[in-house]
Amino acid sequence: MVPQWLIEKKRDGSPLSRGEISEFINGFTAGDIPEYQMAALAMAIYFQGMTFEEVTALTETMMHSGDVIDTSTIALPKVDKHSTGGIGDKVSLVLAPLVACCDVSVPMISGRGLGITGGTLDKLESIPGYRTDLDTQEFLQMLNTCGCVITGQTASLAPADRKLYALRDVTGTVPSIPLISASIMSKKLAEGTDALVLDVKWGKGAFMKSVDQARELANTMVEIGVRMGRGMTAMITDMNQPLGCSAGNSLEIIETVQTLRGEGPADLLEVTMELAAHMLLLTDRAGDKNEALQTLQKHLDSGAAFDKFKDMVAQQGGNPGSLENLSMLPTASMEVPFPSPQEGYVADVDAEDIGKACLVLGAGRVKVTDHVDPAVGVSKLVKCGERVEKDQALALVHGNDAGRMEEAMQHITRAFDITAEVPNENPLIVETISPRK
Amino acid sequence: MVPQWLIEKKRDGSPLSRGEISEFINGFTAGDIPEYQMAALAMAIYFQGMTFEEVTALTETMMHSGDVIDTSTIALPKVDKHSTGGIGDKVSLVLAPLVACCDVSVPMISGRGLGITGGTLDKLESIPGYRTDLDTQEFLQMLNTCGCVITGQTASLAPADRKLYALRDVTGTVPSIPLISASIMSKKLAEGTDALVLDVKWGKGAFMKSVDQARELANTMVEIGVRMGRGMTAMITDMNQPLGCSAGNSLEIIETVQTLRGEGPADLLEVTMELAAHMLLLTDRAGDKNEALQTLQKHLDSGAAFDKFKDMVAQQGGNPGSLENLSMLPTASMEVPFPSPQEGYVADVDAEDIGKACLVLGAGRVKVTDHVDPAVGVSKLVKCGERVEKDQALALVHGNDAGRMEEAMQHITRAFDITAEVPNENPLIVETISPRK
Repeated sequence: MVPQWLIEKKRDGSPLSRGEISEFINGFTAGDIPEYQMAALAMAIYFQGMTFEEVTALTETMMHSGDVIDTSTIALPKVDKHSTGGIGDKVSLVLAPLVACCDVSVPMISGRGLGITGGTLDKLESIPGYRTDLDTQEFLQMLNTCGCVITGQTASLAPADRKLYALRDVTGTVPSIPLISASIMSKKLAEGTDALVLDVKWGKGAFMKSVDQARELANTMVEIGVRMGRGMTAMITDMNQPLGCSAGNSLEIIETVQTLRGEGPADLLEVTMELAAHMLLLTDRAGDKNEALQTLQKHLDSGAAFDKFKDMVAQQGGNPGSLENLSMLPTASMEVPFPSPQEGYVADVDAEDIGKACLVLGAGRVKVTDHVDPAVGVSKLVKCGERVEKDQALALVHGNDAGRMEEAMQHITRAFDITAEVPNENPLIVETISPRK
Repeated sequence: MVPQWLIEKKRDGSPLSRGEISEFINGFTAGDIPEYQMAALAMAIYFQGMTFEEVTALTETMMHSGDVIDTSTIALPKVDKHSTGGIGDKVSLVLAPLVACCDVSVPMISGRGLGITGGTLDKLESIPGYRTDLDTQEFLQMLNTCGCVITGQTASLAPADRKLYALRDVTGTVPSIPLISASIMSKKLAEGTDALVLDVKWGKGAFMKSVDQARELANTMVEIGVRMGRGMTAMITDMNQPLGCSAGNSLEIIETVQTLRGEGPADLLEVTMELAAHMLLLTDRAGDKNEALQTLQKHLDSGAAFDKFKDMVAQQGGNPGSLENLSMLPTASMEVPFPSPQEGYVADVDAEDIGKACLVLGAGRVKVTDHVDPAVGVSKLVKCGERVEKDQALALVHGNDAGRMEEAMQHITRAFDITAEVPNENPLIVETISPRK
């Protein structure tokens, strides 16, 4: 194989064969094909796209570039959820223990935040002692003893994806739907799940700025999963405003606990319940969605889901007492309410602006190597459609540095739009993509 | 400047500023911007193109990445010709001494052959002793003492182009009109010429397979030259069949001498005279094209042009006696005529097939580091439109290796198409692009 001939083939719009894709990607991972040829191919893929056949071959090659976790010793069906990321998205934290109450295993490997997008691992690490660096043995052990696990990826998981992602990040080839799809799916399927539910976000705080883009990404990932023999469902959900009322690491743990106690925000609960119901349907734990929702509600109401969360935290080294006594979680030195400039209806809570405010406060990372401050962020956010009075607090801003607070307030100011008329609202769940099994 | 932001800007179709282009290219040349970012940018340019403003900035940056020859000490106007390359194209060898007879200087820096495309330096080096490695001092000396010079580029000429071209070669980014244009023009303008005539070839043996592509390339290069204050004319000429009747290094020197003696093939003479006439018009050495053609014809007929050629060869270390006694040039051990399979009219002499035959015989290079055999090639080629009898020789094939001869004959066989009807002929000169001064 001459690498530049494959680059030229893709450049000219011809699909690459399964063998060509695996040879190129394996050559790149091994260091035999230089980064400049991979960069040129990635840019050609950005412009020419990939067929489902190609993107599935790319996913399989990257998945098999490292360890694929063998979950065959786990008797229960394995089902996971993946979100494309947003602001205030703590769904995984509620969903994993809730679904694990229903005789299924949830083998969840999560990521860290980057830019305005939050990361599940960062949130969990605000719980004192919580470990996100389990090895494969500990990962399987958690599935056996707890039924759910949320941890970080090991160095041996999909190294081809890690190398390719780092290159895409500096060559302008991140926003390519086939490359995004293969990156997500290669990691998710390497964790050994039988089925996968996808939460593809669209809107101001999401990577996909339009429903059409989100749909294309969702369809591509569902197609890859189906071709690889996995049960798949995807939902397209709104990320124009943050999900729930909090954004920031320990603030989101607090909201997770509130939700598991039945006191959470309605939008967070709705998205979580819908995704969880599809996980039960994919693993035949319910005959229809209503039955699934009833089962889930039962485990919430009984406190079983909250108990499962505390069990998972405890088994992963965290202090479950901090979830009973939330004041044990990190708190910021300053809490400043942001007053509404006028009375009216909340027409916009721009998720991107809220995300930028959190980033400035220190809740997120500009570079991969940055440290996050677990205590800072925004809570008590109003939701679109609410009626507010002048000077009523639209949010409570938590910070540890006066200069950063001031900068964050500029982003917060831009986030809100208060109008005299009742605004139109975006649907929370836009659509659900369920291929025939 | 963050390099990936510029890559993204170009990827999304926005033009880069002059400063952005020079910073990126200079960073790449210095090794501060890695090859993978340059490769991604080159592929984005392949898909999104460049404005005239951008491609001019790219040309200027690459031209000034190394030495720009200062020809201000040469009193006569400087004018050069560049061809995009083809099979049997020995125009430069006739044209440079011919034009130098007309009170202008011809500072020609030429290249070597690669693939099926022949190279002027390789042809000249079949003359015993001819040096193509003049330094800048010797180059200027030649212009003073002879009026024309044909030599290779020094290492210090447009190093940015050399580095970028090597990268494009292995990343599928060679066939991009802005990148080709900037590559050619940065080298040509670094040699210090006031005016430039371009011979842009189209057809089976050319890089540009259609007239439209050739026109786009010609227009881009003319625009760059005009923006940089040079007098510019471009001609689009036919390269579906080889130019003249010979292809191969010493065989083309022989045809050059025949043409300078007034015994050359009509097509070679016509293209040479047209290009040369435009060189005289650009340097105000003639009031109109007819006057220019008459002046040129006079220098051919008087033998002055041939004398100038011998003078150039002698001053560059070559043996001018070999141009009087052509048997002193390298000759091949085998000369085999290729018979016509039938009687009829020559409808096709496929330049690409003839080029491949020459490559197989050893006249060209597969890799930059290959050595060429000066003696081998093809001569006495029939021309399209000629009437031929069955078994009449369509070409004389010169080789030094029986196995290579056999392989070359397969390409030669494919090259010819003999039909019963008189074929349509492609115009030799398709059009001339002369911007208003």
